[in-house]
Amino acid sequence: MKMSKPEVIVHYKVPEPTLRRLPWYLAYAKLVLKEGEKYLSSTQIAKNIAVDASMVAKDLSFVNIAGRTRVGYNVADLVGILESFLGFTNSHKAFLFGVGNLGGALMHDNGLEQFGLEIVAGFDVKYELTGTSINHIPIHHLDRFAELQQQTGINIGVLTVPVERAQMVSESMIAGGIQAIWNFTPFRIRVPENIIVQNTSIYAHLAVMFNRLNAIKESEKK
Amino acid sequence: MKMSKPEVIVHYKVPEPTLRRLPWYLAYAKLVLKEGEKYLSSTQIAKNIAVDASMVAKDLSFVNIAGRTRVGYNVADLVGILESFLGFTNSHKAFLFGVGNLGGALMHDNGLEQFGLEIVAGFDVKYELTGTSINHIPIHHLDRFAELQQQTGINIGVLTVPVERAQMVSESMIAGGIQAIWNFTPFRIRVPENIIVQNTSIYAHLAVMFNRLNAIKESEKK
Repeated sequence: MKMSKPEVIVHYKVPEPTLRRLPWYLAYAKLVLKEGEKYLSSTQIAKNIAVDASMVAKDLSFVNIAGRTRVGYNVADLVGILESFLGFTNSHKAFLFGVGNLGGALMHDNGLEQFGLEIVAGFDVKYELTGTSINHIPIHHLDRFAELQQQTGINIGVLTVPVERAQMVSESMIAGGIQAIWNFTPFRIRVPENIIVQNTSIYAHLAVMFNRLNAIKESEKK
Repeated sequence: MKMSKPEVIVHYKVPEPTLRRLPWYLAYAKLVLKEGEKYLSSTQIAKNIAVDASMVAKDLSFVNIAGRTRVGYNVADLVGILESFLGFTNSHKAFLFGVGNLGGALMHDNGLEQFGLEIVAGFDVKYELTGTSINHIPIHHLDRFAELQQQTGINIGVLTVPVERAQMVSESMIAGGIQAIWNFTPFRIRVPENIIVQNTSIYAHLAVMFNRLNAIKESEKK
């Protein structure tokens, strides 16, 4: 693949670690809202989810929300503003590539829609899947992707193909107009600079858990 | 919850970032093996997955594998040793808590077994789910967890309950004998020091993608 320089280098305003932490604050604010509380301070958030208070305040400074001295943020406002800021209130349509175990599982997950993502079609190279559907989401042969992308303009792709196809399929995705790839494979795909990649390698977390459980078991033997 | 000090502080030998990167090398080695290559050097791995070569060598130094000067590692050995080191070749049984959208989706994901995790039962508070199953995995009422934990000794729990129940359910999990929690909720659960938690907040990755796509769109307008 030619790695051409993007024409524009985009400078992102909000740091990625901030964007990854904001959903934690949102989750906590939703809980507090449900409990009937009216106000919530960044100190309270920090204390309850065990992160640094100054980090919470700094992270929230990127979001356009004003707190009141002493009482903090209005909880309902905080929930609404965070949801909208994070893009969870818009519907972002996406294609999914690779309708295997994990791909099929994600197509079953209606919860994604509450976070702004709607998978509208799955693509696979297996002819026996063509024309079928999962959870009312149609599955097409990968050959039809470019045509359907042109019709819809969809620019988000969920990558759930087997490891050995990850690089190749991601190149087809990009060639066909995908701008953001949500990569669920443990393969580190290489993409041009202007393509957004988020790696969600859920299996890597398993490796950490297994290792830690073993270490505890070993230490108990001593 | 009482946060009692654990009796033993376990010092983990392998750093968490290393454990998270090793699956990347495994994925690449599997690809190379499929392509029929016999040997693979850490420099080659580094180049192909765009990470630093010295980091690859350092990470692999935690794994008991010897490379040959100039030619590198035997690929088949590397795959086998990494899979076993990461715990993917053993079957680790787990309980899942919260059979909602994401919980149900994970129960559909047979791919987890290839990475050493077998979900053997789901628990939920909804009585209408009790006695049903997903993908041949039985679903029980949460009330039965402690009893089934005692019978099986299962110590891994997958947490997929709604945000507002995350803290409470995790406390029941720990009280019932769960030692490692794979937390898929965006809620930052607070646990005693001796409990292992891995946070896989897939929705946080969505927030980053949406923000980046927006920033690109804004910059194109200018």
